[in-house]
Order: sequence, then C-alpha cells, then structure tokens
Amino acid sequence: MRKGFHRDLEALRADLGRMCVLAGVAARHATCALLDTDAEIAERALADVRRISALRNSVERRAVELLALQAPVASDLRAVVASIRIAADADRMGGLAGHVARLCLRRHPAAVLPDELRDTFATMSQLAVDLSDQCQAAVLTGCSVQARRVCDGDAAMEDLHRSLFEAINSPRWSHGVAVAADVALLGRFYGRFADHAGEIAHRVMFQETGSPALKASV
Amino acid sequence: MRKGFHRDLEALRADLGRMCVLAGVAARHATCALLDTDAEIAERALADVRRISALRNSVERRAVELLALQAPVASDLRAVVASIRIAADADRMGGLAGHVARLCLRRHPAAVLPDELRDTFATMSQLAVDLSDQCQAAVLTGCSVQARRVCDGDAAMEDLHRSLFEAINSPRWSHGVAVAADVALLGRFYGRFADHAGEIAHRVMFQETGSPALKASV
Repeated sequence: MRKGFHRDLEALRADLGRMCVLAGVAARHATCALLDTDAEIAERALADVRRISALRNSVERRAVELLALQAPVASDLRAVVASIRIAADADRMGGLAGHVARLCLRRHPAAVLPDELRDTFATMSQLAVDLSDQCQAAVLTGCSVQARRVCDGDAAMEDLHRSLFEAINSPRWSHGVAVAADVALLGRFYGRFADHAGEIAHRVMFQETGSPALKASV
Repeated sequence: MRKGFHRDLEALRADLGRMCVLAGVAARHATCALLDTDAEIAERALADVRRISALRNSVERRAVELLALQAPVASDLRAVVASIRIAADADRMGGLAGHVARLCLRRHPAAVLPDELRDTFATMSQLAVDLSDQCQAAVLTGCSVQARRVCDGDAAMEDLHRSLFEAINSPRWSHGVAVAADVALLGRFYGRFADHAGEIAHRVMFQETGSPALKASV
C-alpha cells in the first residue's frame, strides 16, 4: 500500500509539472497572438488553458482520493495538500495567459500593443516561460534551490511590470487612453502569472522545510 | 473523537465565516479611503488584510492537523479540504481590498477617482460587502440557496466592471491616461473580489452536492 501511495504521489507530481510547463506554453502562445495579432494562435492558447484546467480537476480528484484511502501523515500529508494548492496556482497561471489571449481576440484585427512596448512584452513572455519551466523542475525535484530561482524571476517580472506603468504615465505616451488601459491590465496579467509561479516555489520550499514560507498574498 | 472532530470543524467554519466578513470590511475601508482620499482609513484596510492572512494561516494549520490526526473520509474529508480552499479565496479577497488601499496611499494626497465614477465605486463596494456577508452565510449554513445568491452578485459586479471600461473608452473621457489606467486596475480588483466570492459559493455547493461545480478559473 505504501508503495502504491508513493507511485500515485509521483504521478500527481508529474501532472503538476506538466501543468506548469503547459502554463508557460499558453503564455508563449498568448504573447505570439499579442505580438502578431494572430487570432488562430490566441485560440491555441485557449486550448492549452482548457488542458490545464482538465489536469487540475484530475489532480484534485486524485489527491482527495489519496487522503481518503491512504490517510497519509507528516511529509506525505504535506505533499498531498501541497499538490492541491500547486494545481490551483498552475491553473491560475493558465487562466491569466487565457486573459491575454482573449484580449487579443477582443481587439482583433486591431493590434493591442504600441510598437515600442513589443520588446517588453516579448521579454515578459520569455520570463513567464522560464518561470514555468523552473516551477516544473522545482515540483519534480522538490528542491529549494530550484524553487529559489523562481523567486528571482518573479522579482525581474515585477521590474518589467513597473516599467510599463512608467511608459503609460510618461508625458511622451501618445497612444491614448484605451491602449493605456489595455497595457495596464496586460502588465498585471503577466505580473500575477509570475506571482503564482512564486507561490508554487514557496509551496515547494514549505514541503522541504516544513516551515510556513507562504508568500503573503497581499 | 468524532465529537471532537465536528467541534473542530465547526470552529474552522466559524473562522472561515469571519474571514469572509473581514474581507467585506477591508473592501469597505479601502473604498472609503478611495472616495474620501483618506490615508488613515487605507491603513485600517491594510490592518484588516493582515488579520485575514493570520486567520488563513491558522485555518490551514488546523485543517492539516485534522487530516493528520483524524483521517476523515467522505463528506468530512470534503469539508476539511474545502476549508483550505475557501481560506485561500477569502485571503485573496482581502488581498484585493489591500490593492485598492495601497493604490490610494500611492496617489495620496491626490484623489484617484474622477467625480463621475464615485457612485459606481460606492455601488461596487456595497456589492463587495454584500457578497462577503452572503459568503459567510453560505459557509456557516452550507446551504446551496445561500451560495447561489453569491453568484447573482458576482454577475452584477461584472456589469459594473464593464461599465467602467465603457467610461474609459468613451470619447467623453477627459481625465487622461494615468487615471484611466488606475480605474482599469481598480475595476479589475473589485471584479476579482467578486470572482473569489463566487468560487467560495461554488465550493459550498460542491460540498453539499459532491459534484464538481467548480467555477472555471479562466
């Protein structure tokens, strides 16, 4: 039974890793849609998001089954509870990529971004993909060192997010109000994506150390 | 032991109810700060937010203890797992009220809102308070009818949120780019507050029916 439990837990972890990677793929597709004004690739991002949500439902169901049938304790219990929370964060990362894709579709065939902000969003997208891959590594290895790399990336995203507000608030901004509102929201979507990656990293650290290194959600 | 378990579960539920109400109080304080450009009341909102986060940590710790010591099954297990998720949603509602308060503090002593949007935000705040109180009632009673009222309020908030975007995108908008970006973000904070209330309601319905009426997070 113990062996069965650990095999099931490994399978949960593998699916959590898949969810993280898929969230990065969804962010990449959504950003391509944003940069190329491409409705087809926006739809592809939304399909990624649906796959992530299906995985979340599966992870949640199996985690509750493990709690019911195996009544794990100590670090095994922490690992199962963490898997429910990590699945919620990875699902939310997918949801945020979905918001980017839907904003592209709402504005299509018009472009959402002014040219001078394309590079910033391309960099934010690459950071989102890197964070997602690092989250997968942290989840699969349970290693705090991997998890800490995610926190560094989260801080870098915050800097980019701030630079967008500086652009909007600059007297040189010439793209009007509606574009500014879109850029403010888009910046927040990428920023929150990174925050959730950071929360996954903190969950991994918590599992390893048992101490509540929860990221404050405020 | 069974009796002890149900007493502990009731205590968890009472704290979840408290978290919901406090999230509404935080939203009310944050909106007062927004409408009256009052830094002191913004700080009070941030103190509410810290209390909510402390309650979340306590609920999580006790829920994991219940899983470890009592190994509940069936509806008892669902109730304990739900309490962890509801605590996360209520904490996030507090966090969003905190974002409103911090935006007030960043712009202080300047006002954030144009006069013609004051009524909309006052209505959104009242809706946030109502949703929080309805969430408390749903959590304490476990009643789906109560929970469904929350979903109606969530839809009403979505309408208000949309009206803000219409205001920003209107040719009559005369408050410039920076204010538009602030209003877009504020609208999103209230909108997300209502979304999380809706997720709490879906959790309550799920507990009562056992069927996965999870709100899609995308």
